[in-house]
Amino acid sequence: MSGDRTAIGIDVGGTKIAGGVVDVRGRILVEYQVESPATDSEAIEDSIAELVGRLRAEHDAATVGVGAAGYVDQHRATVMFAPNIAWRDVDLKAELEERIDLPVVVENDANAAAWGEFAFGAGKDIDDLLLLTIGTGVGGGIVKDGELYRGAFGVAAEVGHLRVVPGGRICGCGNRGCLEAYGSGSALVKIAKEEIAEGSLLARNLVDLAGGDPDAVTGPLITGAAEDGDLFAREQLANLGRWIGEAIASLTAVLDPAMTVIGGGVSRAGDLLLEPIRQAFGQQLTGRGHRPVQEITLARLGNRAGMIGAADLSRR
Amino acid sequence: MSGDRTAIGIDVGGTKIAGGVVDVRGRILVEYQVESPATDSEAIEDSIAELVGRLRAEHDAATVGVGAAGYVDQHRATVMFAPNIAWRDVDLKAELEERIDLPVVVENDANAAAWGEFAFGAGKDIDDLLLLTIGTGVGGGIVKDGELYRGAFGVAAEVGHLRVVPGGRICGCGNRGCLEAYGSGSALVKIAKEEIAEGSLLARNLVDLAGGDPDAVTGPLITGAAEDGDLFAREQLANLGRWIGEAIASLTAVLDPAMTVIGGGVSRAGDLLLEPIRQAFGQQLTGRGHRPVQEITLARLGNRAGMIGAADLSRR
Amino acid sequence: MSGDRTAIGIDVGGTKIAGGVVDVRGRILVEYQVESPATDSEAIEDSIAELVGRLRAEHDAATVGVGAAGYVDQHRATVMFAPNIAWRDVDLKAELEERIDLPVVVENDANAAAWGEFAFGAGKDIDDLLLLTIGTGVGGGIVKDGELYRGAFGVAAEVGHLRVVPGGRICGCGNRGCLEAYGSGSALVKIAKEEIAEGSLLARNLVDLAGGDPDAVTGPLITGAAEDGDLFAREQLANLGRWIGEAIASLTAVLDPAMTVIGGGVSRAGDLLLEPIRQAFGQQLTGRGHRPVQEITLARLGNRAGMIGAADLSRR
Amino acid sequence: MSGDRTAIGIDVGGTKIAGGVVDVRGRILVEYQVESPATDSEAIEDSIAELVGRLRAEHDAATVGVGAAGYVDQHRATVMFAPNIAWRDVDLKAELEERIDLPVVVENDANAAAWGEFAFGAGKDIDDLLLLTIGTGVGGGIVKDGELYRGAFGVAAEVGHLRVVPGGRICGCGNRGCLEAYGSGSALVKIAKEEIAEGSLLARNLVDLAGGDPDAVTGPLITGAAEDGDLFAREQLANLGRWIGEAIASLTAVLDPAMTVIGGGVSRAGDLLLEPIRQAFGQQLTGRGHRPVQEITLARLGNRAGMIGAADLSRR
Repeated sequence: MSGDRTAIGIDVGGTKIAGGVVDVRGRILVEYQVESPATDSEAIEDSIAELVGRLRAEHDAATVGVGAAGYVDQHRATVMFAPNIAWRDVDLKAELEERIDLPVVVENDANAAAWGEFAFGAGKDIDDLLLLTIGTGVGGGIVKDGELYRGAFGVAAEVGHLRVVPGGRICGCGNRGCLEAYGSGSALVKIAKEEIAEGSLLARNLVDLAGGDPDAVTGPLITGAAEDGDLFAREQLANLGRWIGEAIASLTAVLDPAMTVIGGGVSRAGDLLLEPIRQAFGQQLTGRGHRPVQEITLARLGNRAGMIGAADLSRR
Repeated sequence: MSGDRTAIGIDVGGTKIAGGVVDVRGRILVEYQVESPATDSEAIEDSIAELVGRLRAEHDAATVGVGAAGYVDQHRATVMFAPNIAWRDVDLKAELEERIDLPVVVENDANAAAWGEFAFGAGKDIDDLLLLTIGTGVGGGIVKDGELYRGAFGVAAEVGHLRVVPGGRICGCGNRGCLEAYGSGSALVKIAKEEIAEGSLLARNLVDLAGGDPDAVTGPLITGAAEDGDLFAREQLANLGRWIGEAIASLTAVLDPAMTVIGGGVSRAGDLLLEPIRQAFGQQLTGRGHRPVQEITLARLGNRAGMIGAADLSRR
Repeated sequence: MSGDRTAIGIDVGGTKIAGGVVDVRGRILVEYQVESPATDSEAIEDSIAELVGRLRAEHDAATVGVGAAGYVDQHRATVMFAPNIAWRDVDLKAELEERIDLPVVVENDANAAAWGEFAFGAGKDIDDLLLLTIGTGVGGGIVKDGELYRGAFGVAAEVGHLRVVPGGRICGCGNRGCLEAYGSGSALVKIAKEEIAEGSLLARNLVDLAGGDPDAVTGPLITGAAEDGDLFAREQLANLGRWIGEAIASLTAVLDPAMTVIGGGVSRAGDLLLEPIRQAFGQQLTGRGHRPVQEITLARLGNRAGMIGAADLSRR
Repeated sequence: MSGDRTAIGIDVGGTKIAGGVVDVRGRILVEYQVESPATDSEAIEDSIAELVGRLRAEHDAATVGVGAAGYVDQHRATVMFAPNIAWRDVDLKAELEERIDLPVVVENDANAAAWGEFAFGAGKDIDDLLLLTIGTGVGGGIVKDGELYRGAFGVAAEVGHLRVVPGGRICGCGNRGCLEAYGSGSALVKIAKEEIAEGSLLARNLVDLAGGDPDAVTGPLITGAAEDGDLFAREQLANLGRWIGEAIASLTAVLDPAMTVIGGGVSRAGDLLLEPIRQAFGQQLTGRGHRPVQEITLARLGNRAGMIGAADLSRR
């Protein structure tokens, strides 16, 4: 196959930038990763351009898709706001096309991941899909009738900011009670630490695993402990899963997707997370018993969903 | 204008069935209304057929659109479940086409109203719209890129069943804490009666207006009293509006519409409802200050939005 | 002593009207009581006039003081609002002076009781006093430097409507979280019934005393049971007392009275109520240890404080 | 005008001592300011005496009024306790009259400010007034029937220690849930820093204004940002205002003032503070709709209200 439909996908994170050349079947032909100079807007753009250059030296490509956390406008060009990068109303498409002589499209990272899973992953046989990425935050992407649902202003699918508890836990967005404050990897660690600080007897084993230092508790430590049978860690994951499952019930009332896909770092917990999600969803869906019910499943592309999705979206 | 694009719209309610002949500009050329024999599935179908007959006697039409509360499948044919009518998995399209020699499409009533407002009402200049109907319940409809958003199984936009309070007030759907349990006309009356039963001093005037009988308090009575300056009635509407506005903030995080339109019987309260909705929305929208903000406005077609929308959808 | 300083005091309640001739030392020379036709404003005024006539037939008097629950204006004439009587902006002074050829003054009932206790009861040796009446509701009266504190509009000292819990229990005034919703006789019964309904084991004896019928639990039953050693009843009184004591701490921060007097029907529980009040007050007063501390004591005039106070106020 | 009614007012703060000569119309004829040696009781007294000497060298005066934060006894002589100065049961009147051959009266600083606003500021046309000073803490002063309300022991009007949330945020006084813990300038900064530490997206601009250092956020920075349209800063002020407005509703139930005046450093935010106060008060006042309603307004004398009030009180 010639390179004229092969595309580059870039995933811009808070600490690193990953890029790969992706073919029309969603396969990664070559990939690289560089550090992300997050506080310097121009430096990130230069890094992206350099990364594209390295990739093209290995394999030709016709377009570039860039996925980044933040609000991207409906023209897939301007980053209005990015929580972890110094972009404020930056026309990233223009900035990058100045540095790269290829057409560039910009997309929200969770949207890109949703598209990746839709085109090549868990959702490749259906037309409608909701993706939830459970990582540091809770992101989302919606595919409807085979098209990415971007919203009127490009900022749809921010499912982490559905309010699930009035006056509840504070969220990074400044509001209280967002799903992200209960159902993200950060919330997982924060709530576990609070229970440890309260002296929960159940948490003893986890603290031992953290070398006796509650501050050393991390998301992967909790997930690993849960896989090894630690009761406290399993309950923490189950509680998180309950919030996610109940939120999916609310989201299903509104969106009625054919499938919900669970991705992001915390989804590596697999069934320890998925089963509580499914159970809570089944108990909470409005009209249950009187309506067809979607499937809830794990993502298949791992942390490359964003890169693959961004590349594919740049072809469209 | 010939009748080949003129359509009949039918709005099936719990107590009456309204029908009208609607032209391509959304104008009603003739309309009638009959009682609804709600508990008898066949009788309703006969009534609809009879009503269509009466309308066609006045004005020809090419198609029939029927809007009804309930879950309608994605083929716009089968009513899977209707809360107020005896339909359970009824192929209403086939049943009606047997009685009427015109093509019939069936649609959820709030979806039909959303389409009506989109095509001919508050949203006629935009491409994306969210409608909330605040009546007995809280219904919803979504238009995206000029198409009705039906969901994978046809049951999207049930915004009244977004959970807003975990373990909260019981909802007609059997769950706890749904928006409908806080933001509907029924909730308005129920909560007002609870406060009256608690002996609220503030409610005295409203009880007087109800002839001294708290059981005689109705939604229109509350709305009317609020318009006349009654403090208690205004606060009840403002509280309802706050729930709706905060829910619109959550819905906007997910759907990012260009406009939200407020319809249904309670919306007749006008600014007494709209202002608290706007204020709560403005205080609660995630990312406020970093994103474009939609308009929230009142519906324009009143209680004919469903009839007009159903007729127009039958042409598509 | 001649009758020219002797006065009549009238206490208008929701179910009865009590009246007495009171001398300058606060002694009741003669007293009568009649039913209160609460829903008929004119009928109450006629009843008061008739009661005054009967009293004057026994003993001459120079003035009449009328105490009633409600908002009385600063001119001691107009009842702006009464919760249990059909008075709305009634110039009661004028209405009564038409019927009685004596000067009349009108006063809020708790204000009158505060004055009675100040002039002849628990506070007769001090200049500043706060009265809390714990009956059906929680009322209050303030005496400052030997003068009744009426407020700029006549409606001061409504201590029952201090908010003690944001979003808390609903109050008869229509707000949530008022002291009255936690610290009144009505709250005592309501909360006890709720705990009975929850199946509290502790409440068994009290339910037995109520003949097995939770609906037959009353304030006097609880108080009587507490005096007989019933643990549940004592705890209910102690909880009520804690709310009252903590509220007195708040009120003392604002008012700094020389003494707080506890009256009203629930105060008949005596030390079972007073001790929890004192304890909570002592634990909660801001600046404790760095300031002089007032005395908290029981009222001395029982349910005649209002009548005696109203009579005495009419002389001033 | 001869100096025989002209008085000196001294405002003793934690970091500086301000003094001025004030005429009978409340005008400041001359004023000076010195550092406050707060930890050394005798040194402060010497500084006050020296300041008085400097002022008298410029303009004669007949009396001296000293305002200081803390508990001042009802004889306007002894400072029982001062939170920021090393005074414990010091007869400050005697100490100062030894150093100055003029009559001295001592007054709580918020009381002095209330008197200043009553005599010459926002309340100069009314007889009853409640002042709230929203600065580092929340102070208060009450004027009733043209007299300062001092309380039986001189420590009335400590409105900052009204408990508004049982078990709530800890207050400088050692209690939990005092108004001061929610409604003071210190609380404003503390709560803003907490939300910044939680990573609130909304707070980004404010942190930028603080040079990227959350510890550099101050009350004036928040107020300034709010004036420049910063959303986070405005919401912080609005939340503070809501607590204050709701507390004024409670205080009005008890005190029924003709006017409440908002002073202190945070009041420089003007309408951004006043509007939320008025809105919350209007929604929360018990008996609203059935009673006259006071005015809530901003103070007029700025940070000289205490000096002017102390001077004027010394003449009385």
